[in-house]
Amino acid sequence: MESQVLLIDCPDQPGLVHAITGVLFRAGFNIISNHEFVDVSSRHFFMRTAFAAAAVPEALLPELRQLLPANARIRLFGLGKRPVVLMATKEAHCLGDLLLRYAYGDLPIQVLAVISNYDTLAPLVEQFNLPFHYISHQGLERAAHEQAVIAVLERYAFDYLVLAKYMRVLTPAFVERYPERIINIHHSFLPAFIGSNPYRQAFERGVKMIGATAHVVNNDLDDGPIIAQGVLPITHSSNPADLVIAGRDVEKTVLARGLKLVLEERVFIHKNRTVVFE
Amino acid sequence: MESQVLLIDCPDQPGLVHAITGVLFRAGFNIISNHEFVDVSSRHFFMRTAFAAAAVPEALLPELRQLLPANARIRLFGLGKRPVVLMATKEAHCLGDLLLRYAYGDLPIQVLAVISNYDTLAPLVEQFNLPFHYISHQGLERAAHEQAVIAVLERYAFDYLVLAKYMRVLTPAFVERYPERIINIHHSFLPAFIGSNPYRQAFERGVKMIGATAHVVNNDLDDGPIIAQGVLPITHSSNPADLVIAGRDVEKTVLARGLKLVLEERVFIHKNRTVVFE
Amino acid sequence: MESQVLLIDCPDQPGLVHAITGVLFRAGFNIISNHEFVDVSSRHFFMRTAFAAAAVPEALLPELRQLLPANARIRLFGLGKRPVVLMATKEAHCLGDLLLRYAYGDLPIQVLAVISNYDTLAPLVEQFNLPFHYISHQGLERAAHEQAVIAVLERYAFDYLVLAKYMRVLTPAFVERYPERIINIHHSFLPAFIGSNPYRQAFERGVKMIGATAHVVNNDLDDGPIIAQGVLPITHSSNPADLVIAGRDVEKTVLARGLKLVLEERVFIHKNRTVVFE
Amino acid sequence: MESQVLLIDCPDQPGLVHAITGVLFRAGFNIISNHEFVDVSSRHFFMRTAFAAAAVPEALLPELRQLLPANARIRLFGLGKRPVVLMATKEAHCLGDLLLRYAYGDLPIQVLAVISNYDTLAPLVEQFNLPFHYISHQGLERAAHEQAVIAVLERYAFDYLVLAKYMRVLTPAFVERYPERIINIHHSFLPAFIGSNPYRQAFERGVKMIGATAHVVNNDLDDGPIIAQGVLPITHSSNPADLVIAGRDVEKTVLARGLKLVLEERVFIHKNRTVVFE
Repeated sequence: MESQVLLIDCPDQPGLVHAITGVLFRAGFNIISNHEFVDVSSRHFFMRTAFAAAAVPEALLPELRQLLPANARIRLFGLGKRPVVLMATKEAHCLGDLLLRYAYGDLPIQVLAVISNYDTLAPLVEQFNLPFHYISHQGLERAAHEQAVIAVLERYAFDYLVLAKYMRVLTPAFVERYPERIINIHHSFLPAFIGSNPYRQAFERGVKMIGATAHVVNNDLDDGPIIAQGVLPITHSSNPADLVIAGRDVEKTVLARGLKLVLEERVFIHKNRTVVFE
Repeated sequence: MESQVLLIDCPDQPGLVHAITGVLFRAGFNIISNHEFVDVSSRHFFMRTAFAAAAVPEALLPELRQLLPANARIRLFGLGKRPVVLMATKEAHCLGDLLLRYAYGDLPIQVLAVISNYDTLAPLVEQFNLPFHYISHQGLERAAHEQAVIAVLERYAFDYLVLAKYMRVLTPAFVERYPERIINIHHSFLPAFIGSNPYRQAFERGVKMIGATAHVVNNDLDDGPIIAQGVLPITHSSNPADLVIAGRDVEKTVLARGLKLVLEERVFIHKNRTVVFE
Repeated sequence: MESQVLLIDCPDQPGLVHAITGVLFRAGFNIISNHEFVDVSSRHFFMRTAFAAAAVPEALLPELRQLLPANARIRLFGLGKRPVVLMATKEAHCLGDLLLRYAYGDLPIQVLAVISNYDTLAPLVEQFNLPFHYISHQGLERAAHEQAVIAVLERYAFDYLVLAKYMRVLTPAFVERYPERIINIHHSFLPAFIGSNPYRQAFERGVKMIGATAHVVNNDLDDGPIIAQGVLPITHSSNPADLVIAGRDVEKTVLARGLKLVLEERVFIHKNRTVVFE
Repeated sequence: MESQVLLIDCPDQPGLVHAITGVLFRAGFNIISNHEFVDVSSRHFFMRTAFAAAAVPEALLPELRQLLPANARIRLFGLGKRPVVLMATKEAHCLGDLLLRYAYGDLPIQVLAVISNYDTLAPLVEQFNLPFHYISHQGLERAAHEQAVIAVLERYAFDYLVLAKYMRVLTPAFVERYPERIINIHHSFLPAFIGSNPYRQAFERGVKMIGATAHVVNNDLDDGPIIAQGVLPITHSSNPADLVIAGRDVEKTVLARGLKLVLEERVFIHKNRTVVFE
């Protein structure tokens, strides 16, 4: 029997957990795990309930809608392998790691296709017998390039679009088309270095740790609610090129970890924050 | 208004979350956070619910007992500073760290007294204006020494007894007197080294990490359900004496972290496992 | 110009650094980095010197041998991509990660071939256009199986043999054939769990961290001088199957990290210890 | 016999290690450990040599000066407990941790005195029988306040001035008075948050890690070459007040770690970078 997951978030009020679990109880579902959290600062309620059922029980929705505040967000998902499309540019580390996990089952992921603005990674994708869509941005306006990407995306019924080192800024129009469905990874430093060539800046300051942040894309590429973060120690003997390689290791690890949380529907977005029920 | 916490664990059955939250709802309490977990392998249910109330609402207990299975364990605690007694031997790192946190409020702890089988740490404890009970084990049978310790402990209404590097093995009779209430810390290696002088063994194997484990004491000193663990990297240039110092740093950090979880009543013990709702 | 590395270890005596660097200076080589360490407990001297030279300068060896104690171990290596053979059984995580790093340059490795006692991983290896040697152990005595493996290994001029989750115990005769040249990875727990199914034992103790150890193989499979270690946090909600997946993530990360140190010749073995010059 | 340490940095040229170790060899000193590093990007040479000698062998300096480039920086230190003055404002976590380490020997530190712009921490310092100098900044111009601090500092022969959460910006004039001798700690986030109340900003972005950076103070308080960094994981359930406490834990750990490197003279400053020989 498959696991189903119910996600609810709404302004907090007394009795929400009792009301929601009553619906599941009367429908005969046994709860496997339940996480609930109230963000005291915004008085917002978040609940994730996993339960066993043969199919996504859409029949629960009317009763839940009746019991919950009008502005409640109610979502039901069947857990299991989730369909995704991956986007990348030239670097293989994140893409290759996700393809291996897809092929060998270490992540609940069904990769449908890979899109890139370069053809560099075509051989890697084809090794895994997956469609590779090369959509060069050369000579195209940004909007026109994104239209070509969207035309390909529309062929696939994907739940999430994963930017596995896709190095192009996305327009607000593109991002709004897939709200809370685009996941990105980027390196991070303590402290952050703004501007071009952050690896060189980090080197020149003698930074001792390199990090990565997996986040949901909202308005711009390297911003948005944070899902997962990680760091690796580095030393003075790492030159900027070594830092790039260390950055890759932490990026691929953090992207896989963050993506697992997303695919298992453990992540709520609220304003610019996440609530992550691990 | 104070935070109260309700802990329930029992064999799993349908409707438990709904039934429990109904009691809280009818009593007019709003849930601040709720964690629930079913251990699928043992079919055991665990739930921690924090809610706002002016005092520990003992009046909830009869209704909960009526609704829940007869073998359910139901506990209510008021959160806030929890009374503890500390025990130590000669090393100052864990004891000193806890005393500082007690004095400066970084842990919800009220230290009532410190007991030691040496007088080494008396000056440290007296700096913090706390009672120091020196109960030497010299010339005493183990049972007689423990009786002397118990005689002192009975003067204090403590919730937890924290072994902050207390280096004496406790008898089963002593441990059974304070079930699930004794917390211990010890260093750990990957892999573990059995026998005397594990630091030297770790050194001779070229170990690259030293760890610590905070756990609940059940039958013997360094065993029992694990609450928290941590590690620090080490290198070949660390001699056995350096490893001891590194071990102290990770011990004090992990003990404080594990104790915070215990004092906030986030830890369930079930058989030899813990469920920790962070 | 390529980087060359000179490794010297011998019983300590005054003047070693001066003598060794004199040889390099008179030969006209500029030192890029130099690490030296004396293990005070065994009075043994270790030195790794990297310098720029067009080829491995074998001509230095006679003068070094003359200056150094008779039992000094003196080794010269050219840095750059190092030839290795990989061995695996059925699990893809470590093997796949190394193949990706080989294909995309994140590790100084030249993979010559993969040997397995199952054919499970043949498609993965063939994706990367590498020879896959399936040598089943079915119906063979251990020594006969190892002879078949050795027959294949003799076709390749490899520097290191990497056990990327090769799940067969190796005989002392096999190990002695490739002294200090076989690298292995295995999971580790804090504390360690002996016997069958350590993941279940760790689960039943409520372990909060899973680790991995990369080591040089000397006499038995999971023992030997430690090169690198790492850990990942886990929680009560991880069942034994989840622990296996978490174990894979930390194994592949630690193997890659340990192997980088080995391939760059940063690891000395002395008795059962390592000196690792990071 | 005490350990002595020789630190040399200068523009790189061939033969430096050989020349330097020759001076030590001819003086009859045996090298215990030697680290050498050439920063390829700036062609600068760094070397730290520890050796056994009864006293700081000042007699080596003329010969070293003769052999080395005119702009070489040559420093000799005796290892052992190093005299420091601590400065703090109101928070006890870093100061208390350093005082405990001083009192119980986990750091090679001799605390001479504590200076604060508030009297909050006077009882803590007095517990440890150390002089506490309360120098309020109230009603004083910044320069006048610093003059009062300097007047106190001049009474003490300290090697390092440690800012253990001293929350006042220092003027360039003050910093230049103690070049490379002022050590500071501050929290860090990935990514960094600029402006007031970074803990609230981090909370609102759903940050999953909080870090700390120990650094040498050059021109402004939270900038300067980085010595050590660390992070702790945090979750959505941490409110801004919890983040402050988590921040304290990582700050005190990283300050102690960074300070150990400084007191053992393992840190070179070059431009805005550090070379740290661990």
